[in-house]
Amino acid sequence: MAREPLRILGIDTSLRSTGVGVVDARGTSFSSLYYGTIKIPRTWIHSKTLARLHEEITEVIQKEQPQAAVIEGIFYCKNVRTAMTLGQARGVVLAACATAGIPVFEYSPRKVKQAVVGFGSAHKDQIGKMIKSILGLQEIPQEDASDALALAICHLHTLTGHRLLDPQEI
Amino acid sequence: MAREPLRILGIDTSLRSTGVGVVDARGTSFSSLYYGTIKIPRTWIHSKTLARLHEEITEVIQKEQPQAAVIEGIFYCKNVRTAMTLGQARGVVLAACATAGIPVFEYSPRKVKQAVVGFGSAHKDQIGKMIKSILGLQEIPQEDASDALALAICHLHTLTGHRLLDPQEI
Repeated sequence: MAREPLRILGIDTSLRSTGVGVVDARGTSFSSLYYGTIKIPRTWIHSKTLARLHEEITEVIQKEQPQAAVIEGIFYCKNVRTAMTLGQARGVVLAACATAGIPVFEYSPRKVKQAVVGFGSAHKDQIGKMIKSILGLQEIPQEDASDALALAICHLHTLTGHRLLDPQEI
Repeated sequence: MAREPLRILGIDTSLRSTGVGVVDARGTSFSSLYYGTIKIPRTWIHSKTLARLHEEITEVIQKEQPQAAVIEGIFYCKNVRTAMTLGQARGVVLAACATAGIPVFEYSPRKVKQAVVGFGSAHKDQIGKMIKSILGLQEIPQEDASDALALAICHLHTLTGHRLLDPQEI
């Protein structure tokens, strides 16, 4: 059996505004001591932006010591250019996690919504409200951070046996 | 004026077989003391593959101390899935270069062929032969390494004023 609390890092990856959220589970009780958004100015060139993202993810892992990271599976992208840009950010996040020695899992957006709100077509604001309620927070976290916390909660539901969501280690 | 020799690292990025090649320029004389291919087994999961690619690129930069890196610009990709996979590898390469403190430039495949062979529609085997000739090598390097050396030569042509190819720092 894994040690308690189970601590999972959710990462809502993008190039300039990556949400991160760490969720602890003690039995069926979930809490979060850390969440936020890694913001990188639009004026930074790609290579420096990606280096910074790698550094920030590495720092969160070193500080928070999660047992695993969870990212969103890519099942749809508008076009090749968007896929390339998102792919670059995603590659850096995956590499940072693997270098830090933690496994990475991915879930489809639909499965995350099912796990957190109860149905796969939930709206953004419904996710935020549920996150606040599940984690007992004072306020609804900013959207990227909410999405990151939702990813972590989704994985914890799987680990704690609430649901069998069949995550893929990637 | 930049120090001599000018030393440039070309990187032909892919997930499992990334070509690398370091080219030195003394005036108009080009040579290469290091080139090869970073091979990563197909059985490795994505996150570990990307972490390894980051590590290997970092190692090449630390060992060879190039002044800049050059990658291929992406102007065409078959589909979103390919773009995502290539984007992941590319993101890791860009981050590794920026973390190591060297600038990264990109050229379109057409400009690389123009710079090395003299025309933009050159075939792969023509590139290999020209690389061997320009660098005075005993043999034609493996294809990924040849492409990496071609990228470095293309950038050196720009730096040494042979051609104005208008590279983009990314």
